[in-house]
Amino acid sequence: MQIQNTLRGHTLFFDKKPVITATGTIAGPKECAGIVGNFVDKALSDDMFGESTFEKAECKMLSYAIDTAIKNASLDRNQMDVLVSGDLLNQIISASFAARDFSVPFLGVYSACSTMSQSIMLSAALVNAGYINNAVAATGSHFASAERQYRYPLEQGTTRPPQSQWTVTGAGACVIRNKGEGVKIVNATMGRVIDYGVTDVNNMGAAMAPACAHTLIQHFRDTNTQPEDYDLILSGDLGALGSRLLKDLCWEKGFDISSNHVDCGEIIYKVIEDEFQGGSGAGCSAVVFNSYVFSKLQAKMFKRVLFAATGALLSTVSSGQGESIPCISHAVQLEV
Amino acid sequence: MQIQNTLRGHTLFFDKKPVITATGTIAGPKECAGIVGNFVDKALSDDMFGESTFEKAECKMLSYAIDTAIKNASLDRNQMDVLVSGDLLNQIISASFAARDFSVPFLGVYSACSTMSQSIMLSAALVNAGYINNAVAATGSHFASAERQYRYPLEQGTTRPPQSQWTVTGAGACVIRNKGEGVKIVNATMGRVIDYGVTDVNNMGAAMAPACAHTLIQHFRDTNTQPEDYDLILSGDLGALGSRLLKDLCWEKGFDISSNHVDCGEIIYKVIEDEFQGGSGAGCSAVVFNSYVFSKLQAKMFKRVLFAATGALLSTVSSGQGESIPCISHAVQLEV
Repeated sequence: MQIQNTLRGHTLFFDKKPVITATGTIAGPKECAGIVGNFVDKALSDDMFGESTFEKAECKMLSYAIDTAIKNASLDRNQMDVLVSGDLLNQIISASFAARDFSVPFLGVYSACSTMSQSIMLSAALVNAGYINNAVAATGSHFASAERQYRYPLEQGTTRPPQSQWTVTGAGACVIRNKGEGVKIVNATMGRVIDYGVTDVNNMGAAMAPACAHTLIQHFRDTNTQPEDYDLILSGDLGALGSRLLKDLCWEKGFDISSNHVDCGEIIYKVIEDEFQGGSGAGCSAVVFNSYVFSKLQAKMFKRVLFAATGALLSTVSSGQGESIPCISHAVQLEV
Repeated sequence: MQIQNTLRGHTLFFDKKPVITATGTIAGPKECAGIVGNFVDKALSDDMFGESTFEKAECKMLSYAIDTAIKNASLDRNQMDVLVSGDLLNQIISASFAARDFSVPFLGVYSACSTMSQSIMLSAALVNAGYINNAVAATGSHFASAERQYRYPLEQGTTRPPQSQWTVTGAGACVIRNKGEGVKIVNATMGRVIDYGVTDVNNMGAAMAPACAHTLIQHFRDTNTQPEDYDLILSGDLGALGSRLLKDLCWEKGFDISSNHVDCGEIIYKVIEDEFQGGSGAGCSAVVFNSYVFSKLQAKMFKRVLFAATGALLSTVSSGQGESIPCISHAVQLEV
């Protein structure tokens, strides 16, 4: 299989440049020991967040991120026209139950760990077209709820293989408006489902790297840009191994991203040790983008960022039935 | 809790009126014994559809519906700008794996059984704004895969309670374009998550009726229309009991939909017997709308239809943790 140049572009251009005016983020203790610790709105000391189950804690984190983003934007929740959100849990219950709290129109999405960029893309598309004025895009994940849903109960104490990643406990949200100061959303490139036949569910980075490469290259072609036009090319949660594969895949096609590529999964933890390849989960790029990267954009330390979150669209059932891992990546271009 | 009139409208208005130019539908033998049997593109004699598992059969049905819709629109798959799809299986694997087959940009959505109207709404919003020209919106479900994921393995032979519905085995898709002959999409009302506290997972109709009532009333207010302005008000899959509740809830707020309301779940089966309250599942409204109702619209037997699919956003985990059932309904207004 090869990365094709398609006949049509996949990029939505936003002539009115919707603005991310504020974000809200929260992360667990393990995550806050690393780079995002100084940038999140709330650093949890206990990843149960006062709840009785992991799933309820995940939902509460997501609600917190949404609520904080709206407050940081100096808006009231009844001024929000839509919430675009999804998460990793079956039937996206974190997002659905968070949406119940907010009582605003809700568009549920599922794009695994590329949910953050898909949500920003859809929100920006609706705002730019003038349908709505204020949207909030959000997602999150929780290490413990993901482990028991996708892999094994934590109590079992299963040994993790070296190619695995660690699902981030955290959530991020951003408010996207038709006016105001902040980070402008210039365009967004929709991803295609790409599957190179990887079947190792512990090696998500390898599975997702081709989808990310495809979207980045499609983006460069559609927008007539080159990697060096960006201060930062931020991939979702490929981890260390996946990032190396991504660089190789792009280089093969004539795009050298090695000097300005950073992966959220690769940088989120202080020391990549127990986490092996780094962080993953919808919360990974949600937290890194909405805290650390957004702060740097606001401070104009980055002026042009390409944010391509990446998602592995498998389930335990599909893997159990012998299927490989279809992956996707959606990219949004941001400027100040 | 009461149905509130919100400060802002929830309706996206499509001034260019995107067109549903063609549909594709497929349904199982039980479904095809009823009203949709004469209208679907393919009536299955075996609901395994030649596959080895229920999940693979569900995915193949969805692919078939998408492929048929594109062919019926006299288009090639590489002319499609986006596929908007989701389904009931964990991590929407039917949609993701179908998207892998088609190799077009993919936006995964999750809105349970309101996926059909949410997909149409998002597709129409992107087409109307001029971002893209051709979209395909699709969803489906399978009785056997839903039973074993949400309830019990079929082999267990569990007795069904009288308030239950029967998940439809079938899939439907429609092609939405910026030009061409067909059914025009005039506007769409985004739903909010509504939860009246129903906890009985076998009584989805009762859980979803308030969300549907909320969206219909919001729609009437936003568009300044009345129930009698529509030839047909088509709800998703409330079933017999849920439909009665919907009519009562609307009537309480001064909107009498009793003379022109029809529910997809209530009409899909020939005799409501084993199915008790009727059909449900994302495939229910997908099949009824894209086959029977679309045919009647094309024949101008209906000129103005309000289609409000309904979804219950629960999971087995949320119910197991004692949560009630949050529900949603998105509505699209169609005209010829």
